[in-house]
Amino acid sequence: MAHHADYSDFSANTTKQELLQQVIDSYQALSEGQTNWVCNLANCSSLVWHCYNEGLAKKVNWAGFYVVDPADNKQLILGPFMGKVACQTIKIGQGVCGAAAASKQTQLVPDVEKFPGHIACDGETKSEIVVPIVHDDKLVGVLDIDCLELNGFDTADQQNLEALCKLISESSKW
Amino acid sequence: MAHHADYSDFSANTTKQELLQQVIDSYQALSEGQTNWVCNLANCSSLVWHCYNEGLAKKVNWAGFYVVDPADNKQLILGPFMGKVACQTIKIGQGVCGAAAASKQTQLVPDVEKFPGHIACDGETKSEIVVPIVHDDKLVGVLDIDCLELNGFDTADQQNLEALCKLISESSKW
Repeated sequence: MAHHADYSDFSANTTKQELLQQVIDSYQALSEGQTNWVCNLANCSSLVWHCYNEGLAKKVNWAGFYVVDPADNKQLILGPFMGKVACQTIKIGQGVCGAAAASKQTQLVPDVEKFPGHIACDGETKSEIVVPIVHDDKLVGVLDIDCLELNGFDTADQQNLEALCKLISESSKW
Repeated sequence: MAHHADYSDFSANTTKQELLQQVIDSYQALSEGQTNWVCNLANCSSLVWHCYNEGLAKKVNWAGFYVVDPADNKQLILGPFMGKVACQTIKIGQGVCGAAAASKQTQLVPDVEKFPGHIACDGETKSEIVVPIVHDDKLVGVLDIDCLELNGFDTADQQNLEALCKLISESSKW
């Protein structure tokens, strides 16, 4: 890698599995010896954003993180992300992010309009995937990706993003 | 505002001064009652990114923050940003960010290649502005914006971004 920015280049791979694996491998390389969660999640948001928008040519309008609010553990607070300005806090249990946080289960939502209590930070979002980040059996945050098209994500996304979130959990101090 | 994402819309204003003032006003609205620095800087990165790339039609390839590393106060560590993957840490005193941090003075760099000791996270960057964030006379971080063109920033950018960084300093707990 000549420059750190080169990690955002997803042109070398072609299949979906290769591209998602590149995110995981790049995250592993970038987080080696670095446990600062803000730093790690900031670069991870960039990897995910560039993989989906450029590598996979998927219209992802938001990719990033919410973490458990240190000032109030009943809510999530905005972490590093790529995309338009977002809601600052989300009650655990509310909306897609809140459901993933409350259940510690990935929420794969083909149509956000059909999700009970969906919170629209951006009215243009059509589908969404939210993967919990769990450390020592405790929720620490969620990875949230929004798409401008219906059915933006499938179980291949889910499996790879869950592997990524496991790595995120292990690599960072919470 | 119907949705938080609407804060990223810079189409209502036209002059440079109005657009930069919109960033400041939007940051003030978004940070009201919210002192979490990660949350505030994450949304601020999005405001700056959309103002420059869309409002001002300026080719900004990176907009975001480095903060003093809580694990080592002789270096900066990556904070929230928009753009390609970036260097995780920067020694205070090194490169454009490090110079702004060491001097607590804005670095307005029309041509990064001419800046002694410039650190290239992205080889495509041509010009840069880095504004220190100072809280109670202590450096807490820097706002860094990179441009794909030479002479990307001028004293109007500097004045407005310094006002923004003053607001950032006051609005967040460090």
